[in-house]
Amino acid sequence: MSISQTAVSRAGVSVASIDSFHVGGEVVKLHDQPKLQMRVAGKGVAREVDLNGSYMTGQVYANHVRLNQSEHDFPVMFWHGGAMTGVTWESTPDGRPGWQWLFLEAGYDVIVTDAVERGRASWSPYPQIYNTPPVFRTKEESWAMYRFGPKSGYHDDVASRVPFVGQRFPMKGFDALAAQLVPRWTTHDDMTLDAYEALLRKVGPVHLVTHSQGGWFGLNMVLRAPELIKSLVVIEPAGAPHLSKDDAKRIAHIPHMFVWGDYIEDVPAWKNYRQAADEFMINLKDYGGQSELLDLPSQGIRGNSHVPMMDDNSAEIAALVSEWITRTTKTA
Amino acid sequence: MSISQTAVSRAGVSVASIDSFHVGGEVVKLHDQPKLQMRVAGKGVAREVDLNGSYMTGQVYANHVRLNQSEHDFPVMFWHGGAMTGVTWESTPDGRPGWQWLFLEAGYDVIVTDAVERGRASWSPYPQIYNTPPVFRTKEESWAMYRFGPKSGYHDDVASRVPFVGQRFPMKGFDALAAQLVPRWTTHDDMTLDAYEALLRKVGPVHLVTHSQGGWFGLNMVLRAPELIKSLVVIEPAGAPHLSKDDAKRIAHIPHMFVWGDYIEDVPAWKNYRQAADEFMINLKDYGGQSELLDLPSQGIRGNSHVPMMDDNSAEIAALVSEWITRTTKTA
Repeated sequence: MSISQTAVSRAGVSVASIDSFHVGGEVVKLHDQPKLQMRVAGKGVAREVDLNGSYMTGQVYANHVRLNQSEHDFPVMFWHGGAMTGVTWESTPDGRPGWQWLFLEAGYDVIVTDAVERGRASWSPYPQIYNTPPVFRTKEESWAMYRFGPKSGYHDDVASRVPFVGQRFPMKGFDALAAQLVPRWTTHDDMTLDAYEALLRKVGPVHLVTHSQGGWFGLNMVLRAPELIKSLVVIEPAGAPHLSKDDAKRIAHIPHMFVWGDYIEDVPAWKNYRQAADEFMINLKDYGGQSELLDLPSQGIRGNSHVPMMDDNSAEIAALVSEWITRTTKTA
Repeated sequence: MSISQTAVSRAGVSVASIDSFHVGGEVVKLHDQPKLQMRVAGKGVAREVDLNGSYMTGQVYANHVRLNQSEHDFPVMFWHGGAMTGVTWESTPDGRPGWQWLFLEAGYDVIVTDAVERGRASWSPYPQIYNTPPVFRTKEESWAMYRFGPKSGYHDDVASRVPFVGQRFPMKGFDALAAQLVPRWTTHDDMTLDAYEALLRKVGPVHLVTHSQGGWFGLNMVLRAPELIKSLVVIEPAGAPHLSKDDAKRIAHIPHMFVWGDYIEDVPAWKNYRQAADEFMINLKDYGGQSELLDLPSQGIRGNSHVPMMDDNSAEIAALVSEWITRTTKTA
């Protein structure tokens, strides 16, 4: 990006198109459901609601913003974590520009996704179509799992909350983050990977930037469809598959970046997830693959939570990631 | 819009910012729920899931795109219908530019919303927080309710479907539309109006463009917060409240536009909804208010369905609406 282009980008971005669409999934048909009498709009009388019929299920939602003058050959595709949606990559909970915007400013076309059964991807009746119930994330659980502070530090009263020392997540945005959380199912890995593979086949190769459960999915997806992933960024992945030598060789040409925040040692679940991801990373390196570890605390950047794209240094981390993608994947 | 600006807009739009946020709702706390053991990510072991705790519920999601050079004093805010989300206003199901894009091209800042319990607004556990179950829309119901064709014209097999003669909805996009549909609750009118009123108070006055159930809500909202609505477009509203003489006087200065497609006589539910909306419109006029009827068939535009923002003439109708807003609300 030249200096003059930087000046332009500070005045906004010139957008060529905004497309959204759903991809993947299948039609399922329900039979023998009882008919209901329900009021469905306004204060009118009840009308018959018939659940029998056909539904789309298993689709993923994508929003694709194209720049007038993209500076890179491939778009960045964002894949959010569990209990979240594409909103992860939009404005931060305290109202600063999100990574969607920052990557547009960096000259990338950007695809933001809502995973299967979350947000605009929609969800299906259970137990009729899904065979398990959803899981919900409480404010208390997000406080602990996003490593904002010790469990004992969460209180209903905002002023009484005690985060970890040096915490960079903007505490005034905590309730706004809680408003973003969505229900999720825990048994839909294959359905989700199928839909995202269909999405990747539709939009072509991407730089895939993933978070948390999306990182778990990303590390599985690169094994499924290595030809569609130009680089893979996994931010705080919630686990990783075992990487065999043969698999490592298949993906050895794809640059991988692993990003970790602070306070991992304070939350046992994250110690375990990190161990699995570290094993993947080490195996990848041992077998000749490209992987970069962006361990923020060991680089002197302390205080990041599980959601660095929302922390007070989110723009700085976005720049580290986008510059790594550009540097690692540019053709000579 | 001058000719030179039109030329610029054909090359895209210059965007100053994309902000998204949730507004409204409240925190509720669940107690005494049984703890569950569930696998929540990857193929790892089960972990304890504790539903007890605090949730945000009742919030609305908004996505606000600001132009570098907005040509109008107030943004357009879009409010979708039942079983749908803000995706209504994005790309059409057959991949043409949606009304979000067309209104940006027309020089308006644009706010797209996902209503309470739909899409990115999220939804809450039932029966624990919501006291009723959701309703789901089948492909068969949307075929009939969106007035694509007679009930008997729907078939699983795409090639066998028989739409109304002259139907403008792009039939090759029907399954893509079905993929957009989301569950909804039928008992949350007050919760929804509360959240949207909070949203309007946050963003300031808007031109409110509504569809279907969103039209029912819009006609209630203008009575709640007339100071926050510069003009109101109700596209195929699913009903209307009774408008008293006193209420009509309070909103008489606000231009209203009612938009209707074709085939109303073929679907009894829509004859009833239209009758209620016509009564609102006639009362508004009788008491000195401003209302315009854009009855597409009587203007010689035949074949529009219940979703004119997706039909093959969606850009033409967007232009009729945006030009009406500009003409009716411009300050001399």
